[in-house]
Amino acid sequence: MLSGGIDSATALYWARSKGYRPYCLLFNYGQRHSKEIHSARRIAQQIKAEYKIISLNLPWKGSSLTDLRQEIPQHKKGSIGKEIPSTYVPARNTIFLSFGLSWSEVIDAEAVVIGANALDFSGYPDCRPGYIRLFRKLAREGTKRGAEGKNISILAPLIKKSKADIIRLGMKLSVPFALTWSCYKGGRRPCGKCDSCRLREKGFREAGVRDPLIE
Amino acid sequence: MLSGGIDSATALYWARSKGYRPYCLLFNYGQRHSKEIHSARRIAQQIKAEYKIISLNLPWKGSSLTDLRQEIPQHKKGSIGKEIPSTYVPARNTIFLSFGLSWSEVIDAEAVVIGANALDFSGYPDCRPGYIRLFRKLAREGTKRGAEGKNISILAPLIKKSKADIIRLGMKLSVPFALTWSCYKGGRRPCGKCDSCRLREKGFREAGVRDPLIE
Repeated sequence: MLSGGIDSATALYWARSKGYRPYCLLFNYGQRHSKEIHSARRIAQQIKAEYKIISLNLPWKGSSLTDLRQEIPQHKKGSIGKEIPSTYVPARNTIFLSFGLSWSEVIDAEAVVIGANALDFSGYPDCRPGYIRLFRKLAREGTKRGAEGKNISILAPLIKKSKADIIRLGMKLSVPFALTWSCYKGGRRPCGKCDSCRLREKGFREAGVRDPLIE
Repeated sequence: MLSGGIDSATALYWARSKGYRPYCLLFNYGQRHSKEIHSARRIAQQIKAEYKIISLNLPWKGSSLTDLRQEIPQHKKGSIGKEIPSTYVPARNTIFLSFGLSWSEVIDAEAVVIGANALDFSGYPDCRPGYIRLFRKLAREGTKRGAEGKNISILAPLIKKSKADIIRLGMKLSVPFALTWSCYKGGRRPCGKCDSCRLREKGFREAGVRDPLIE
């Protein structure tokens, strides 16, 4: 599942490095801008992976990430909020993983790979290890493949990594970070102030690597 | 979640009888025909419930229910197959429940109600009690509501009922069975031969009730 950000791009390259042949699933779910889906597409094309775009047309908002009338929260440097922020999209990873599971059964894929991580993150509940573990069980219990004793793995290779570690891993795997997009806003350049920009900046700084998106 | 069949219509009326104010979620996922979604809409309108239709545009098939090139399996009277049939739609209930969960968070609903049952059923893995139990845990772990200690219940009031019991309950609750549609094919009348028709026929027969769709 490829969002166009640093994490899912790194998870994709990780999967490829482990010998998986990746099929990429992209989601258009009413994000504020289409920059991240363009990024995701270019990353998939970069490694010549098959990809599909799911257009969700969610008839509800419930998140500042999909509701243009809401402001994206800004944070001072190094001060990601302790509460779950308004950018939380209700049940987003459950929706994404359910499509991933469905496509996996159809193409007989071994695993669904998700870039979720729970260290330098915004506190989204559906990024935590316990959540991934439960979805793993659900995948076994709720599919034909699972019922037949074959399993669809749910892999979250970055779940316990810091953003700096993810960037270091990405560098090792030659992830094209210049193609990734993290900013919640769709400007020409990253805003530098939203959660996602802050976490990205912190990661590159701690990894001692220059962010190719920042001039 | 309302499909237009007997089970989800009865689950809807059950929820209303328990004092819930229902919001109905209908899914257009590339079924062979649009009869069931028309049924679902009429049932929602019948009780003046708000409803939303989610159009999924799944870019894959993987089921005889969504792939017109595949035949719908026919069964002799009383002989539902022991294996999971080709009408299984990969991860369908996981997809449906994830949307139900998302909408629940947005409208602050107390529960998601699903008409799944695992007695007179086609053997779909995502209709079994163990699956529902796991999704219940996932709903708690993977949402903002759950993380805040409030819960979204996943209710499957029919899970252990026979089709006859469901029909008896529906009669008691005045479910408009004449508006429901069960047949996997989209003919003018039910085919009488698919799993879904067979289960419906068995249920009405055992309940000693006339099916209003059969002349």
